[in-house]
Amino acid sequence: MEATMTPTPLLDRVAGPADLKGMGDGDLARLAHELRREVINTVSRTGGHLGSSLGVVELTVAIHAVFDTPRDKLIWDVGHQCYPHKILTGRREAMATLRQGGGISGFTKRSESEYDPFGAAHSSTSISAALGYAIGREMGMPVGDTIAVIGDGAITAGMAYEAMNHAGHTGSRMFVILNDNDMSIAPPVGALSKYLNEIAAKGPLALFKAAAEEFESHLPGPMRDGARRARQLVTGMPGGGTLFEELGFSYVGPIDGHDMGQVLATLRAARARATGPVLIHAVTVKGKGFAPAESSADKYHGVSKFDPLTGEQAKAKSNAPAYTSVFGNALTDEAARDPRVVAITAAMPSGTGLDIMARRFASRVFDVGIAEQHAVTMAAAMAASGLKPVCAIYSTFLQRGYDQIVHDVALQGLPVRFAIDRAGLVGQDGATHAGAFDIGFLANLPGFTVMAAGDEADLVHMVATAIAHDEGPIAFRYPRGEGMGVDLPTRGVPLEIGKGRVLREGTGAAILSYGAHLAEALAAAELLEAEGISVTVADARFAKPLDCALVDRLVEHHPALVTLETGATGGFGALVLHHLANSGGLERGRAIRTMTLPDRFIDQGSPAQMYEWAGLTAKDIAATVRQALGRVVAKPGLRVV
Amino acid sequence: MEATMTPTPLLDRVAGPADLKGMGDGDLARLAHELRREVINTVSRTGGHLGSSLGVVELTVAIHAVFDTPRDKLIWDVGHQCYPHKILTGRREAMATLRQGGGISGFTKRSESEYDPFGAAHSSTSISAALGYAIGREMGMPVGDTIAVIGDGAITAGMAYEAMNHAGHTGSRMFVILNDNDMSIAPPVGALSKYLNEIAAKGPLALFKAAAEEFESHLPGPMRDGARRARQLVTGMPGGGTLFEELGFSYVGPIDGHDMGQVLATLRAARARATGPVLIHAVTVKGKGFAPAESSADKYHGVSKFDPLTGEQAKAKSNAPAYTSVFGNALTDEAARDPRVVAITAAMPSGTGLDIMARRFASRVFDVGIAEQHAVTMAAAMAASGLKPVCAIYSTFLQRGYDQIVHDVALQGLPVRFAIDRAGLVGQDGATHAGAFDIGFLANLPGFTVMAAGDEADLVHMVATAIAHDEGPIAFRYPRGEGMGVDLPTRGVPLEIGKGRVLREGTGAAILSYGAHLAEALAAAELLEAEGISVTVADARFAKPLDCALVDRLVEHHPALVTLETGATGGFGALVLHHLANSGGLERGRAIRTMTLPDRFIDQGSPAQMYEWAGLTAKDIAATVRQALGRVVAKPGLRVV
Repeated sequence: MEATMTPTPLLDRVAGPADLKGMGDGDLARLAHELRREVINTVSRTGGHLGSSLGVVELTVAIHAVFDTPRDKLIWDVGHQCYPHKILTGRREAMATLRQGGGISGFTKRSESEYDPFGAAHSSTSISAALGYAIGREMGMPVGDTIAVIGDGAITAGMAYEAMNHAGHTGSRMFVILNDNDMSIAPPVGALSKYLNEIAAKGPLALFKAAAEEFESHLPGPMRDGARRARQLVTGMPGGGTLFEELGFSYVGPIDGHDMGQVLATLRAARARATGPVLIHAVTVKGKGFAPAESSADKYHGVSKFDPLTGEQAKAKSNAPAYTSVFGNALTDEAARDPRVVAITAAMPSGTGLDIMARRFASRVFDVGIAEQHAVTMAAAMAASGLKPVCAIYSTFLQRGYDQIVHDVALQGLPVRFAIDRAGLVGQDGATHAGAFDIGFLANLPGFTVMAAGDEADLVHMVATAIAHDEGPIAFRYPRGEGMGVDLPTRGVPLEIGKGRVLREGTGAAILSYGAHLAEALAAAELLEAEGISVTVADARFAKPLDCALVDRLVEHHPALVTLETGATGGFGALVLHHLANSGGLERGRAIRTMTLPDRFIDQGSPAQMYEWAGLTAKDIAATVRQALGRVVAKPGLRVV
Repeated sequence: MEATMTPTPLLDRVAGPADLKGMGDGDLARLAHELRREVINTVSRTGGHLGSSLGVVELTVAIHAVFDTPRDKLIWDVGHQCYPHKILTGRREAMATLRQGGGISGFTKRSESEYDPFGAAHSSTSISAALGYAIGREMGMPVGDTIAVIGDGAITAGMAYEAMNHAGHTGSRMFVILNDNDMSIAPPVGALSKYLNEIAAKGPLALFKAAAEEFESHLPGPMRDGARRARQLVTGMPGGGTLFEELGFSYVGPIDGHDMGQVLATLRAARARATGPVLIHAVTVKGKGFAPAESSADKYHGVSKFDPLTGEQAKAKSNAPAYTSVFGNALTDEAARDPRVVAITAAMPSGTGLDIMARRFASRVFDVGIAEQHAVTMAAAMAASGLKPVCAIYSTFLQRGYDQIVHDVALQGLPVRFAIDRAGLVGQDGATHAGAFDIGFLANLPGFTVMAAGDEADLVHMVATAIAHDEGPIAFRYPRGEGMGVDLPTRGVPLEIGKGRVLREGTGAAILSYGAHLAEALAAAELLEAEGISVTVADARFAKPLDCALVDRLVEHHPALVTLETGATGGFGALVLHHLANSGGLERGRAIRTMTLPDRFIDQGSPAQMYEWAGLTAKDIAATVRQALGRVVAKPGLRVV
């Protein structure tokens, strides 16, 4: 392919950021051009987060040229826009292994490079991290300047505001670069987004060039006044302050984030003069410089391998993996039947499948922005008002709303429905996106009903169960990706609360599965059957209320019981054990094993690879059954009661 | 006492808010005066949150007079300022039972009254709740207007910002009353606080009266323009917008929250004209109208019983219960030895005991405001910079930082130290403040070291252990209140990680305690000893890494094992069971019981009462041991291996 042949003479000279120090501004601009082509070519072969990375090419070059990384701490919010950064910081070759098993991460990661001082993947953490490092510097730790680069979507999350409010209070010198591309994964919502658009609209970027020289030469200390003057020069906005200034930041901008001259001048001036926290507002274009990305609705946020000339993706990335679309369709059906059904997403309408419902019932789908805390509490009040709210939030992001789940939902017993996608290990996004903890953090809350779908047909029934359940909060989890391929019911039928199902009967051992590893449990049973061990496989469906009668029956009639879940300890298996302990069931002396995610974080790979590393394949399940039986059989005198 | 004799002719006529509708403005002002005396007299007999309630007397009367509760939904943020509201809404007599076992809650509570549409206790949830209800109304649910009353401390939390950002986007009609008393429990920190002070300072309240009439008569729709004009009239601030207007709210104020005329006029105008979200900025005085409260540093935030004339408290409320001050002193000692030790609180310097350290090392104690998310991530970066940060956050509030604990601390393995006060049941603050879930939500995270102090001497050692532990995150929990009275060591000595201790040896049964119910475990052993059952009592000290050798030894040598923790299921006992299951230890058929907090929320009472309801007294422990042994003994043929 021709594009991959483009020579990169400047980039070839860059082993690390130090090699940028000697370059003139013109070379830096040319380097950015080469770097952009390199990102396009690299990602065309690996897939990944393309659009965000293309939007920050000039910012990346300029930051590394002006600041002194890694002593200066550069913190990319979310981190999915870090590909140009990785290429400039010694990972150009390693980019070929991006997001693959054993390869480099798709996000920043401390263990990967000294140039990644603070890893990320969830949004909106960078300002807190930059302030923490800045305080470290003030207290004598070996830290230079701290720079957070945060998107206009990410800055709407509450913790970014908490961090700005605190930074404005401490007055610590630090830099926040607002990368304003008017997009998160989807176009961002919220009043702040509108506000930023207004600022950007008022500030004709063309004026900046003329003003820039004057800006640099006239900028007085303290920086705050200089920034105000600069903004007035550029935007013509008189008096008042921006929201950021009201929070105690100096505000500079808006600048054109793709004009290397503007970016370099602004960073140099800010670095030379800042005494406190400074926000630099850079307007960028997601997907910049690659026509197919710029013209696409999602700006090539995440892509599979593609043709670097045409942008055509080798295999179109499905916006709705099987479970997600099954959920979206089932919920839409319920919404058609009951006008009280409403749905809430935190900036992920397509990732959650709520876009399916929104196509029919736009006014009943609420995108609150990156604001899981608010999403949960708002949903609680919606439930109190009589609506039937469905909060659709990935397992890993639901962690952001945990206190609200406890305090506003569980304590008040309000019937909020939680649809928890991306349960278990998720593949290329790696450990930061794993849905590992939701079973435990929900099923140990009083009054919660907690389900997991064993297959995609059960997911349809669980959606119906949740909508029908007005007695208190209810949650159901399901994994990323394709289902088992079972037939889908034409209509979901509410399940009996707290009742599991038995899929096959045996006498040699029992596997009690919770959630979508049911297929692996059945496969393990096949493996064992071939060895003459007949195995009962049951699907618990509910972690809470637990089907105690089913558990008791399995323990009574089998010498060994293996519980299975794609989650951490302290969840489903723990509740089975708690029940057996306190009802005397352990006194039978059965061999019980609890298969959970292991006690370590699992790096990215294909989901199959990751589950292999986690020890949760069908083979592992069969081995665990064998081991349990071996122990029991080896113990002389045991008699199955 | 003379004050209690003050007649309350108007208040006596108020059975509910409907009785305010016929009153003239003068009577409403007089009613507020009577209500204030009533609050003082009532709280003088019960203790409680006095200062906040005194600050909102006029607001409470005016809201109920102008709005149509309970159809209009009035949502008090935190809810600790709701005493005047409770008195006006049919709970005047019940106030005698405030915060007592079986009595009414110290916060708003849905199950208590239809006038409490959304309960609270944790801060900053009210705007989300008001928006949820407003959307309910827009979708046809039987809801009128929605009003959130939120303090200037609470509005600094991220979720309040998330809610405002979303409300500004939806444009839903709703009212947020900012109760700006320049205090949370302590004076609030953060840039927003300074900003609000600047607004208040610029707006001479005396001017308002003259402007009010013009304000009402000239206010055009849409409200935004009217509000801007009103603010300019009042404050003389030209152009620009307040932070709230930038987030899409109409802004009215500042007004004097104790001037009934101003408050009534503003609420009436806002109610008549608002088409979207409106923020009314009311400046109030915490403790208003009670000289001892107004002149006290904490404005009588929380008081014990007191003399209503002098304000003298019957028993001065200790700002530093035993465990809290033991922690504060131990940490100060560590800070004196190691300059890298820093501490972080989220708006609770005295509640956490960090005020003790701040008296010696003010620059090393960071109060971030009500911002637990930011606190945790900032601490992670501090640790990355080389500092030794100690995050001191109550168990219940640490829930707010859960995702940050997972994503920024655990995943990166950063050595943040978490000091978790108020573990277990906490008394008068009730279920919302219980520290019930921290064991499970921390000990199931990879790489975390998780401890609980069995007594106050061990707390000193755990502080030393945490400071010495640089290998990854570490947490230690301890309860509210007094310790066991054991001698304190002169200096903390780091404990061996993952190692418990045996306090008494027996042969009949074993109790494995985790945390401060160790005293109850020992008392239970005494009870059993008197019956001839000799009991081993061990203190696990660590939930993670678990002392597996100790657990195995206890199971090997005793027919029954009871685990004990003041936390929910899925925590310490679950980890003991997971270990025993997967190491084959359950195959001994021992009687094992896991004593945890029960699967329901426990309402307020004395801690002793609450633990009685929870079934976690020494008697309950003894009964559980007996029951476990009975089962074992009743089973014929069992032989202790």
